[in-house]
Amino acid sequence: MKAAQVQEKGGDFKIVELDKPKPGPKEVLIKVEACGICHSDAFVKDGTFPGIQYPRVPGHEVVGTVEEVGERVNIWKKGQRVGVGWHGGHCFECDPCRKGDFINCKNAKVSGISYDGGYAEFMTAPQEAVASVPKELSSAEAAPLLCAGITVFNALRNSGIKPGDIVAVQGIGGLGHLAIQYSAKMGMLTVAISHSDNKKELAKELGAKHFINTEKEDPAKALQKLGGAKLILATAPVGKAITAVVDGLGIDGKLLIVAATGEEVKVSPMQLLMGRKSLAGWPSGTAKDSEDTLDFSALTGTVPMIEEYPLDKVNEAYDRMINNKARFRVVLKP
Amino acid sequence: MKAAQVQEKGGDFKIVELDKPKPGPKEVLIKVEACGICHSDAFVKDGTFPGIQYPRVPGHEVVGTVEEVGERVNIWKKGQRVGVGWHGGHCFECDPCRKGDFINCKNAKVSGISYDGGYAEFMTAPQEAVASVPKELSSAEAAPLLCAGITVFNALRNSGIKPGDIVAVQGIGGLGHLAIQYSAKMGMLTVAISHSDNKKELAKELGAKHFINTEKEDPAKALQKLGGAKLILATAPVGKAITAVVDGLGIDGKLLIVAATGEEVKVSPMQLLMGRKSLAGWPSGTAKDSEDTLDFSALTGTVPMIEEYPLDKVNEAYDRMINNKARFRVVLKP
Amino acid sequence: MKAAQVQEKGGDFKIVELDKPKPGPKEVLIKVEACGICHSDAFVKDGTFPGIQYPRVPGHEVVGTVEEVGERVNIWKKGQRVGVGWHGGHCFECDPCRKGDFINCKNAKVSGISYDGGYAEFMTAPQEAVASVPKELSSAEAAPLLCAGITVFNALRNSGIKPGDIVAVQGIGGLGHLAIQYSAKMGMLTVAISHSDNKKELAKELGAKHFINTEKEDPAKALQKLGGAKLILATAPVGKAITAVVDGLGIDGKLLIVAATGEEVKVSPMQLLMGRKSLAGWPSGTAKDSEDTLDFSALTGTVPMIEEYPLDKVNEAYDRMINNKARFRVVLKP
Amino acid sequence: MKAAQVQEKGGDFKIVELDKPKPGPKEVLIKVEACGICHSDAFVKDGTFPGIQYPRVPGHEVVGTVEEVGERVNIWKKGQRVGVGWHGGHCFECDPCRKGDFINCKNAKVSGISYDGGYAEFMTAPQEAVASVPKELSSAEAAPLLCAGITVFNALRNSGIKPGDIVAVQGIGGLGHLAIQYSAKMGMLTVAISHSDNKKELAKELGAKHFINTEKEDPAKALQKLGGAKLILATAPVGKAITAVVDGLGIDGKLLIVAATGEEVKVSPMQLLMGRKSLAGWPSGTAKDSEDTLDFSALTGTVPMIEEYPLDKVNEAYDRMINNKARFRVVLKP
Ligand SMILES: [Zn+2]
Ligand SMILES: [Zn+2]
Ligand SMILES: [Zn+2]
Ligand SMILES: [Zn+2]
Ligand SMILES: [Zn+2]
Ligand SMILES: [Zn+2]
Ligand SMILES: [Zn+2]
Ligand SMILES: [Zn+2]
Repeated sequence: MKAAQVQEKGGDFKIVELDKPKPGPKEVLIKVEACGICHSDAFVKDGTFPGIQYPRVPGHEVVGTVEEVGERVNIWKKGQRVGVGWHGGHCFECDPCRKGDFINCKNAKVSGISYDGGYAEFMTAPQEAVASVPKELSSAEAAPLLCAGITVFNALRNSGIKPGDIVAVQGIGGLGHLAIQYSAKMGMLTVAISHSDNKKELAKELGAKHFINTEKEDPAKALQKLGGAKLILATAPVGKAITAVVDGLGIDGKLLIVAATGEEVKVSPMQLLMGRKSLAGWPSGTAKDSEDTLDFSALTGTVPMIEEYPLDKVNEAYDRMINNKARFRVVLKP
Repeated sequence: MKAAQVQEKGGDFKIVELDKPKPGPKEVLIKVEACGICHSDAFVKDGTFPGIQYPRVPGHEVVGTVEEVGERVNIWKKGQRVGVGWHGGHCFECDPCRKGDFINCKNAKVSGISYDGGYAEFMTAPQEAVASVPKELSSAEAAPLLCAGITVFNALRNSGIKPGDIVAVQGIGGLGHLAIQYSAKMGMLTVAISHSDNKKELAKELGAKHFINTEKEDPAKALQKLGGAKLILATAPVGKAITAVVDGLGIDGKLLIVAATGEEVKVSPMQLLMGRKSLAGWPSGTAKDSEDTLDFSALTGTVPMIEEYPLDKVNEAYDRMINNKARFRVVLKP
Repeated sequence: MKAAQVQEKGGDFKIVELDKPKPGPKEVLIKVEACGICHSDAFVKDGTFPGIQYPRVPGHEVVGTVEEVGERVNIWKKGQRVGVGWHGGHCFECDPCRKGDFINCKNAKVSGISYDGGYAEFMTAPQEAVASVPKELSSAEAAPLLCAGITVFNALRNSGIKPGDIVAVQGIGGLGHLAIQYSAKMGMLTVAISHSDNKKELAKELGAKHFINTEKEDPAKALQKLGGAKLILATAPVGKAITAVVDGLGIDGKLLIVAATGEEVKVSPMQLLMGRKSLAGWPSGTAKDSEDTLDFSALTGTVPMIEEYPLDKVNEAYDRMINNKARFRVVLKP
Repeated sequence: MKAAQVQEKGGDFKIVELDKPKPGPKEVLIKVEACGICHSDAFVKDGTFPGIQYPRVPGHEVVGTVEEVGERVNIWKKGQRVGVGWHGGHCFECDPCRKGDFINCKNAKVSGISYDGGYAEFMTAPQEAVASVPKELSSAEAAPLLCAGITVFNALRNSGIKPGDIVAVQGIGGLGHLAIQYSAKMGMLTVAISHSDNKKELAKELGAKHFINTEKEDPAKALQKLGGAKLILATAPVGKAITAVVDGLGIDGKLLIVAATGEEVKVSPMQLLMGRKSLAGWPSGTAKDSEDTLDFSALTGTVPMIEEYPLDKVNEAYDRMINNKARFRVVLKP
């Protein structure tokens, strides 16, 4: 089978011919139909994920059909359309797993990092990492929902917001353009925050009621003018930009960060005390959360804006993503 | 009547003779029996509270008996023992008030700052700022519960912790020594964090199961060794010390800050994402929250450790507090 | 001014000429533009509300403009468009009020029952019972939202459901036809339950994804086939019909009842234990909740289906409502 | 090995000699040190559990030491002291399991019903059904905590109550005498409800602040006199008795039922609407919940009152339990 491999830290993607993998006893073999390119694939390309081993086939936004199941697989059947996201499997035996909190498994695997992912014609995945895909969604549209989509959907639905609340989405990119849609479909009064007016029109079309251009106005003040945000979902991984919106929180407001960055956010207790405000982080979710994300997307007609590339053009496709040129997610089709 | 007044920014307390005040139509006149000295009284002495006017009588940890009620007061009766805390009244008409969220009233008054407080033989307070005091508590013991006590009790009970959870109290002072007791009485596995072993013995007596000396070990690592804290209650207003415990949070852990400081706390999204962690602030509470605090204290036998001073010795008493010499709250008795 | 009065228990509505009322010190005089007829107006007509006094002008779904304000009114200004719902005022001084839980005020007033309501050209209301009405909604459409609307909106948003959850609305009438819309606009997978196919088409148009006809199939089984409801909102006040859907709850499912009836619902602990299920009740809400309801309705374009009648035809209009002939709310226009 | 078997529906317990069982690949063999007798063991004796097969060794409150582990067991090691409760294993693959909600597993096993339990010298259990037992607790004291204890502890801690709340425990038996202790140790204002004064003294000793004798006064009225219960934990499986306390709920009050009975509870929507009240059920919990229960018991010194019997006297021991003579749990020691 054909696959796009990173062969060493910092290397380009090479199209190689590999043996079609065999599923282990609790694994599923998937014939890939679409695989999104995620910013976190840079962990593989740049070798920044702790302990990563080469060669490695990235890809954790995978949709395809079950080609074969391992001998002890009960959940899945040949022919089903399924997906695999960032959470690539768990041990069932550590303390978080025993509590049912699989996303915090101490031995969690990451698809396309712990094992080969979806930049290929086929991939295997542990059965617990696999999600069912509803027929309403095309494979190419569904793929980015398995990482970009689930992250913001799961963060939003578990954030404690209630219909009608003021929800600001900071950053309009792969995550943000989905978050705006989800937020609006959940009945929130949605505010988009960006650093130019380029995406103003689009943000409104996606469901934003208000738009804040941080170059033109202080986003914290602008949010306070609207009443103060109950939730600010930070999708752009820039410490300064996140710090800049803290004072835009209203009473009981929460700044929920899904942007994975090690950059510092600075906040003083006084900023949080009055009004009982908070800062929090949210990771992605499990296969079951993926199913919920996909089902909600099907129910409400929420899909990502995508650019499709054949697997052979993986380097070109990756460049679109890494240089923030794509509107908004790039999807490989093998 | 006798009162201890601050007459100008930075001035000492002067014992003066004032007219006994008359309660307004919705106000209560209280014959003060005890008034705690709180670190926030420095706002009055140092003139750091926005818009403060002099002369001013501080004091927002007041217990006494109702001496007289205003003409439209229905809640209180002459002779009742009552208390007044930090929250000194609200407007009933702003948006937060219309939602019943009085602590966030846009026109909230602060006792001993917006109007004269409890460093005196008598004080008046709006009826909505007054709390009933249960007979099980002495006036001197109850007084500090109206600010130090309510702050940590209210923060703890609303933090989402569940019995048996690991709760760390950072700082063993006026707030901390009460927080340790409350946490233990709520059935939490309580951990005390201090910067020396001086209060180790005491912390255990107050109910702490574990003690962490930050001079001897990294508090974040020490907390992780215990399993990771579900809650860290930060009572010491030192940005660096708060920053230092963030990585001691366990899964779903919350760092809840009651220490009012403008010092920066630094945190990266990556620290919060994995494990869904959060940083949050909590202010004190309303008169009803004070009643709950006092009732819980009576129910569980929780009282502050106090040092009592006559009103005349207010300067000496204040010095004990401001220099962190008191164990742990100083109470004036007129 | 003209008003429609009930003059004795069981009497018809009489159109009478009354003095235009004067607002008290904390009251607002409203020039009525529209007043919904609610099933609870039968309390007035039939004399079944404890302590009701005659003559009485009913009406608690009132929209109009502020004509005059009492001397101590700060919240409202002449000319504003406002509304009044079921919750007609509170005392600010009882225990629930001191907690900010106004809807549970021990001395709560009910508009159109404790004092004359909106079946008239003018009415007065305490300022705390008054809600602001957004310009996007017409007065006639906004009126029913102040009782039928707020009840189901407030119940839904506070029920703990999350976007994508299966939410069943039992009964498609004045409350139900709004609940279906709200639920769909909140991103819920909405199921309508009725006892005939008459409203099947309509239910789908209002946003229901599924429709259950209780004459054709057991609603509990039908809900289980869909996966089990996370929430069933019971809007039809029939004990047997409510009892019949209990077993349609899924894991963590809640049967939330807004239908005010004294009829018995029967349930066994075994039905609730497995799956951690619950039965709960929800009353309407405060003026602030009304504002949230109206704002959400404006944001999402949710309006009731109404039939308009001039005040003179109040008896005819009331008959439409009481005989379940209206689709779905009747609104009087003075 | 020696075991106490039920050989047919309704039959007595027979002491038999069986082969010491071998653990399967993911199972643990436990040398039993103590096994509580639970009212639910009547399901085995009376043959009322759907699909039960004979002969069967009951027992789902088991404490012992790991004697041997199956080849794929990673969690447990020979020599550890462990326990097994009602929840006897789950499939990891059904929808609830994929969500981490093991207690609602569609293929859940019950210890001592789906397979032989702890009325024996040895038993095997799936590794996921096994809990670690802290050294502070004796095996005989720990055993009943694995069903009676976990049920009330888990119900209480997940009920939403906050320290200082009024919590009523209806029924003072095996579950109730533990619930009173847990509630008090969680800082609740605890009220015991019984149908005679026999256990009044004891209830106070266990931590109850108030005692209600339902023969002397209406429990609903008595609870309202105290302010209304935030939680009533119903531990006695009597429909009428549960129905009788509904009106004792205060605002936001919840009647939480852990008593497994098919008897009807009757409630009208009107009883629930005003004050936002609810009725709910709670099952026991998983092995991880058992560990939390045991750890909390060790932390707070909460143990059941027990009567110990040798395995040979199982019939006598069972009679004590089934006739409500035991104070309060009977424990077999092989
Ligand atoms: Zn794990
Ligand atoms: Zn990704
Ligand atoms: Zn203070
Ligand atoms: Zn206010
Ligand atoms: Zn009231
Ligand atoms: Zn109504
Ligand atoms: Zn299962
Ligand atoms: Zn049991």
